Amino acid sequence: MFDTWENIRKSMPLIHHITNYVTVNDVANMTLACGASPIMADDVNEAAEITQLAAGLCLNIGTLNQHTIPAMLSAARRSGALGHPVVLDPVGAGATALRTQTALDILQTGSVTCVRGNISEIKTLVHGTGHTQGVDAAAVDSVTEKNLASSCEFAKQAAHRLGTIVAITGAIDLAADAKKCYIIRNGHAEMSRITGTGCQCSALVAACIAANLAKPLEAAATAVMAMGFAGEMAHRKLLPGEGNATYRNRIIDTICHLGAEDLRKGARYEIC
Amino acid sequence: MFDTWENIRKSMPLIHHITNYVTVNDVANMTLACGASPIMADDVNEAAEITQLAAGLCLNIGTLNQHTIPAMLSAARRSGALGHPVVLDPVGAGATALRTQTALDILQTGSVTCVRGNISEIKTLVHGTGHTQGVDAAAVDSVTEKNLASSCEFAKQAAHRLGTIVAITGAIDLAADAKKCYIIRNGHAEMSRITGTGCQCSALVAACIAANLAKPLEAAATAVMAMGFAGEMAHRKLLPGEGNATYRNRIIDTICHLGAEDLRKGARYEIC
Amino acid sequence: MFDTWENIRKSMPLIHHITNYVTVNDVANMTLACGASPIMADDVNEAAEITQLAAGLCLNIGTLNQHTIPAMLSAARRSGALGHPVVLDPVGAGATALRTQTALDILQTGSVTCVRGNISEIKTLVHGTGHTQGVDAAAVDSVTEKNLASSCEFAKQAAHRLGTIVAITGAIDLAADAKKCYIIRNGHAEMSRITGTGCQCSALVAACIAANLAKPLEAAATAVMAMGFAGEMAHRKLLPGEGNATYRNRIIDTICHLGAEDLRKGARYEIC
Repeated sequence: MFDTWENIRKSMPLIHHITNYVTVNDVANMTLACGASPIMADDVNEAAEITQLAAGLCLNIGTLNQHTIPAMLSAARRSGALGHPVVLDPVGAGATALRTQTALDILQTGSVTCVRGNISEIKTLVHGTGHTQGVDAAAVDSVTEKNLASSCEFAKQAAHRLGTIVAITGAIDLAADAKKCYIIRNGHAEMSRITGTGCQCSALVAACIAANLAKPLEAAATAVMAMGFAGEMAHRKLLPGEGNATYRNRIIDTICHLGAEDLRKGARYEIC
Repeated sequence: MFDTWENIRKSMPLIHHITNYVTVNDVANMTLACGASPIMADDVNEAAEITQLAAGLCLNIGTLNQHTIPAMLSAARRSGALGHPVVLDPVGAGATALRTQTALDILQTGSVTCVRGNISEIKTLVHGTGHTQGVDAAAVDSVTEKNLASSCEFAKQAAHRLGTIVAITGAIDLAADAKKCYIIRNGHAEMSRITGTGCQCSALVAACIAANLAKPLEAAATAVMAMGFAGEMAHRKLLPGEGNATYRNRIIDTICHLGAEDLRKGARYEIC
Repeated sequence: MFDTWENIRKSMPLIHHITNYVTVNDVANMTLACGASPIMADDVNEAAEITQLAAGLCLNIGTLNQHTIPAMLSAARRSGALGHPVVLDPVGAGATALRTQTALDILQTGSVTCVRGNISEIKTLVHGTGHTQGVDAAAVDSVTEKNLASSCEFAKQAAHRLGTIVAITGAIDLAADAKKCYIIRNGHAEMSRITGTGCQCSALVAACIAANLAKPLEAAATAVMAMGFAGEMAHRKLLPGEGNATYRNRIIDTICHLGAEDLRKGARYEIC
């Protein structure tokens, strides 16, 4: 399982990101921290060409616009044709028609390997409904200890319906294909006070899958655990008076040093 | 007065930002630090829809372009129609015709609740002239102890003429409506060596007004004090060798922990 | 030589950046850290007007797109007409046709004072070939102790052919005009794990040349040394567990405090 984490540093995959301008710098530094290499390029006139150079593609619709949407679709199609993994982060799907439709259009290319989002975004993509509040999941949708069995079932169904792996992050994280679901209890509540921890998680998922083509589910689950565990470790290192800006840096720093053995010890998960 | 600060954490308003890509990450983390929630979206095809979900709108023209200008106008109109507060940060108004005209066009929608800028930007909007130097105010325009009475008078007139609250930040800050002006002496000179402290201040103003719809002037003044006081506190915590990058993080961290009672003690202001 | 560094703080040049959205915040804070002032503006409707206000222009094609390319060309032409220095960072030239062509088009304006890039990017611009891998140089192109003499010769030829100063950064840095080449051995290998150290270096080069119009080669070489030396100093300050996110901040912090005398002592270079 955790050899997937080591494989990122061994293969140093180049990941093409078409992502939002809010968290792009953190996404790039996180990609470097885990041992992969980022390239950001979102013009339709070069998107496919860039993807061709890369080992994987990460599409994040956080600040999508009419110029980057065609670039995303073009890159997704090329990546699919080349057999490269594609991760989709459907930020705010359900919040606006444009976001929902764009996420569905990207899924329609048939190129997406994994969707990493919050539960409301995933519900929107599967059922056409969800309770996305801005870019956050709604409480009513949350994965909790009480609804865990049905949530796992939903994750598997979602994977089946979307034809992808799904990684659903929140207080409890789920990573599933149609048959198997990892329930992951790493993470810290304060991570939600940092912008872009979800985007950074998607970047780790893309890097890990690109380095482990034969084990995409294990790779996605490992990346989700790594992000959560780094969030825990970094939180323990916070000094009095330090807040979300420093916490953000410490999480990236933690990933920079996180070894597979640390992760094996820190990961808290079960399979259902 | 300082209950307005607490009200941000109580109501956790969702703030729609159409802002520049230079400081957007800091703006998002600052919005989270004060207890509000950010959503960035600048495509004209979803701007109004996003605004409708939010409790307030913050428009910052720092890197305006022909695609985001229509989105800003669309969002401003929708926010105005819904009675949501709109904060305008007219970055660089006076520096180019495009910036001046765009700021005036946004004001023309009649939706703007508060304009937060430097003195040269505000003079440009009121008198059509100012001495904006790039994105900084010109020394000749500065609010000083010597011209304080006339500066307060100007701030009130500006509020009257623009039909908004004005928050003018610099060595001495002013927050005024047509009748009342807060003179605020919080802040630290080194804040000007960090990119985006003005943008972050505007984000705090938007969050605070959105959480205090009935007291927009008090809310704007409180947000300006919070930014300045955080700048002072964070500066005291700087270690030898730390510079503007770390200072930036520490200001956001400070806001993350800043309580209304701390602010009441730290605020230095008078009313004229 | 190192008076060029002091001159940035004395003249505080305003630098117009049209740059990528990945590292723009770091570029702005780095520009402030060295004593210059940044303004970012990339709409074709104001690019030339902004450039006219500034003392120098820094063009970075890291996330170029069909809207910013005309703005870059317009700003380059205006800067050239005004005799302002223009620095070009041809990020990813050689990786895609769009990047190579755009860099060549900017060079064709005849306005570029200095090109700051990695060796593969510069080879692409000079020979039409290079081995750019994403945004990183290929190992096969690297400047090493073994090929140093021919690399210096190449740098001078490149300067001659492009009609500009060239600053080639990597494990060993070169800054050359057609007749003289600085070989610079400052820097730290871990800098490559931070996104945008190249972009930040270009920003320092632009600030330093703008403050030293009569000595562009010395200014460029000094800026490259400053970036490398700051990378060394900052690395020494890293605490256990700190990684690339904190390292990034500490480099900017170091520049914030770096004096000409520190730099004179820390610079490791020879001339050939």
